[in-house]
Amino acid sequence: MNMHAIEKEIEAADRAINESDFEVVSNSYAQDATLVVRPGLLANGRQEIREAYQRISDYFNGSLEVSQGDVLVVEAGDTALVLAKTFVKSPKKLDSEYPSERDAIYVYRKEENGRWLCAIDNSYGLELLRQLDT
Amino acid sequence: MNMHAIEKEIEAADRAINESDFEVVSNSYAQDATLVVRPGLLANGRQEIREAYQRISDYFNGSLEVSQGDVLVVEAGDTALVLAKTFVKSPKKLDSEYPSERDAIYVYRKEENGRWLCAIDNSYGLELLRQLDT
Repeated sequence: MNMHAIEKEIEAADRAINESDFEVVSNSYAQDATLVVRPGLLANGRQEIREAYQRISDYFNGSLEVSQGDVLVVEAGDTALVLAKTFVKSPKKLDSEYPSERDAIYVYRKEENGRWLCAIDNSYGLELLRQLDT
Repeated sequence: MNMHAIEKEIEAADRAINESDFEVVSNSYAQDATLVVRPGLLANGRQEIREAYQRISDYFNGSLEVSQGDVLVVEAGDTALVLAKTFVKSPKKLDSEYPSERDAIYVYRKEENGRWLCAIDNSYGLELLRQLDT
């Protein structure tokens, strides 16, 4: 099966995360993108997102390794909903309170130059909704 | 707490579904919207979406009653990810094979006139991803 252009973007972003190249990571997001850093905490725009990745990396003692399992893309024009099984490993942070396997939900937007950029990154998936009840 | 403009749109669309007014329902979707009718079956654009609602209504013997519980909106400029607990009742179709309680995932887009329209409607939530493994 051919890989969707968005899957290639996600793969490239994962590689950049794993290499701690947060400049490349933040450029895979739209200018006005929102990242769910953790439930209740959002980062807006590339600068905040880059800073958030630096803090996330620090939390994981610089040993963040992310990858995706199954990925499903539903498109509507220049907008796409992406559901992805996401794996977060951190060999130097074995006592992390965050789950290492997640059902992530992303929204991608196609720019005028044809490149898909991440507009909303919620690696916590539906967990956000459940936290409203607690 | 003030209701988000998108929640009002969802509430109005639910009311129209419950009144079988599928013209109003389809106009709550963007022109190029995608509706996940059921896992593996998509409807694209307002006409297909209106026809799909008619078929869904027929399946439920005209007795579809939808409503939302908790709703969470994550915005990024003119794009929004919406996570919603959705309830589907069908008093005249008690043997439906589809779940009556769902964690739905929607993507909304703000039009130039300021109105939020549904671009992607996936009431099956992350179930779509799990079906890839079967």
